[in-house]
Amino acid sequence: MGRRLGKQTLRLQREPAVLSYAAVGGKKEGEGPLGGGFDRISEDAYFGEKSWEKAESRMLRECFSLACAKGRLAPGELDCVLAGDLLNQCVSSAFAMKDSGLPYLGLYGACSTMGEALALGSLLLDGGFAGRVCALTGSHFCSAERQYRFPLEYGGQRTPTSQWTVTGAGAVLLGAEGVGVRVTHLTLGRIVDAGVADPTHMGGAMAPAAFDTLSAHFRETGRSPEDYDAIVTGDLGALGHDLLEDLFRREGVKLGPLYMDCGVLIYDLAAQDVGAGGSGCGCCASVLCAQILPALEKGIWKRVLFAPTGALLSPTSAQQGESIPGVCHALALEGRD
Amino acid sequence: MGRRLGKQTLRLQREPAVLSYAAVGGKKEGEGPLGGGFDRISEDAYFGEKSWEKAESRMLRECFSLACAKGRLAPGELDCVLAGDLLNQCVSSAFAMKDSGLPYLGLYGACSTMGEALALGSLLLDGGFAGRVCALTGSHFCSAERQYRFPLEYGGQRTPTSQWTVTGAGAVLLGAEGVGVRVTHLTLGRIVDAGVADPTHMGGAMAPAAFDTLSAHFRETGRSPEDYDAIVTGDLGALGHDLLEDLFRREGVKLGPLYMDCGVLIYDLAAQDVGAGGSGCGCCASVLCAQILPALEKGIWKRVLFAPTGALLSPTSAQQGESIPGVCHALALEGRD
Repeated sequence: MGRRLGKQTLRLQREPAVLSYAAVGGKKEGEGPLGGGFDRISEDAYFGEKSWEKAESRMLRECFSLACAKGRLAPGELDCVLAGDLLNQCVSSAFAMKDSGLPYLGLYGACSTMGEALALGSLLLDGGFAGRVCALTGSHFCSAERQYRFPLEYGGQRTPTSQWTVTGAGAVLLGAEGVGVRVTHLTLGRIVDAGVADPTHMGGAMAPAAFDTLSAHFRETGRSPEDYDAIVTGDLGALGHDLLEDLFRREGVKLGPLYMDCGVLIYDLAAQDVGAGGSGCGCCASVLCAQILPALEKGIWKRVLFAPTGALLSPTSAQQGESIPGVCHALALEGRD
Repeated sequence: MGRRLGKQTLRLQREPAVLSYAAVGGKKEGEGPLGGGFDRISEDAYFGEKSWEKAESRMLRECFSLACAKGRLAPGELDCVLAGDLLNQCVSSAFAMKDSGLPYLGLYGACSTMGEALALGSLLLDGGFAGRVCALTGSHFCSAERQYRFPLEYGGQRTPTSQWTVTGAGAVLLGAEGVGVRVTHLTLGRIVDAGVADPTHMGGAMAPAAFDTLSAHFRETGRSPEDYDAIVTGDLGALGHDLLEDLFRREGVKLGPLYMDCGVLIYDLAAQDVGAGGSGCGCCASVLCAQILPALEKGIWKRVLFAPTGALLSPTSAQQGESIPGVCHALALEGRD
């Protein structure tokens, strides 16, 4: 049973372990700097399906199957799935898991969903309520464009602050016991609305939420940025990354060169024409599985603070002139010695 | 720490207690059989706001405030909020809670969301991860019609199998300790897709999921329907209610006269022109707070099995010809002797 270190942070006592994980991506993600870390890259944006929504669902299902296969676990050996996505009513996750036969907990945390899924999954394990769970999220550029912005055929121009929805998915199997990377702490995020109302500048809208959650994490654990080999937010993009550094600098805290953002890591920003970087539930999920977890397993990093961020807007709320509330959940991940 | 009775069911050891609760509804809900049980009825469908989406959010915020006030708790005395709704990207919950300053866990389980929120909230309490949490959900007829079906002005005709989205919200404050109604068991639901593809017949689509979860509950607890004073699903409506009875009858199990459905309870089906009954995240949430919890507190019922159901479709999935997957989470609630 976890120990509460403060209002938002819990110290996990069983330290749930990563049993297995997988990342699936699209062509553009395969061409990015992390391309080699993906378990599967689909050159076909449709993943063999007839619509982008079905493609997204298929990608999630494949990612889940890959994670199970890599961990030599049958789906039935899991106790539940925690999943979510960006589509209206989170249909890609629900349809991906509908034939799994597993208890299903649907989440909505926008691009922070992998953080929320890992956090709740870890608590289910730490509390003895489950033995093995799966955290699963993803996003698809084409389904997101259609739903949130313009039909692709319209060829709408993008602002330089805008981010590129990642076509990708990540699945992480966590167990109450295991020899893999451990989840040691988690910090649940509050909603923070700094008044940014430009839906093409999500990094700016989410950076204050990341600042709030990371500040709570450092305050409640007594840790500082130097206690981590890497602090990885997702998905603030290049602009949000710099804004977060600024917010900490004003408080006299230097995040340092080991602070990075999933939206920046996943693409070559200079060459891939992705605006300020990647976004979408699949961004930090696939960066986690293609980069962060492998680095922890290999001992390149020993301790990472993983902090996915989400922008809790909808096209309707934006059209009605509402500002963009952000949220960020953080997890401390540790490799084995 | 809870004891696992089976793949889906947990026996809660601390038995989290209901500290307080509140129900808010619209005019039609006030005119229904449970009208007197609501803490607040708004004659104004806009709740003083300028759009239906903002009205829904305002209703949720008011419901949360009422539950806190009734429980003599300041919002800051809670450890987190688990919330969700039917709007795209669950904006009404996020905007309702954005200034609460509380850790926020967004959920999507369609009309089953109150069940999911209570289940996860109970586990956070039972595991010692939180001392007090809030489960909050709601729905609004006008925002749901606009988003899922037709503009209200269009005056579209409804099929007799269709259900009426409840304008209502429910907020339940749960505590690790307390003298109120207890959560003793919970059964997490799997997604069940029986192939029903008619989005105007949600009761038919969800009844198989309710059957699956209730069957797991009875099997894993060793209980039978007679062990409960009431079994309340939500929101199968009149047709789904009868379908579920049929499914159990085929197995030789009689649900009996104490089996009821929130979608049937909330309206006078003969007089209020609501098709097969109520639906929406606010249906079982407000029936729980306006009817079930008061009956447990007064000792009218001693033990209730509360089983909210959700249809995990979207307008896009329906247009693409997909069938409607359903899910149902069940909680055993007990009054004090």
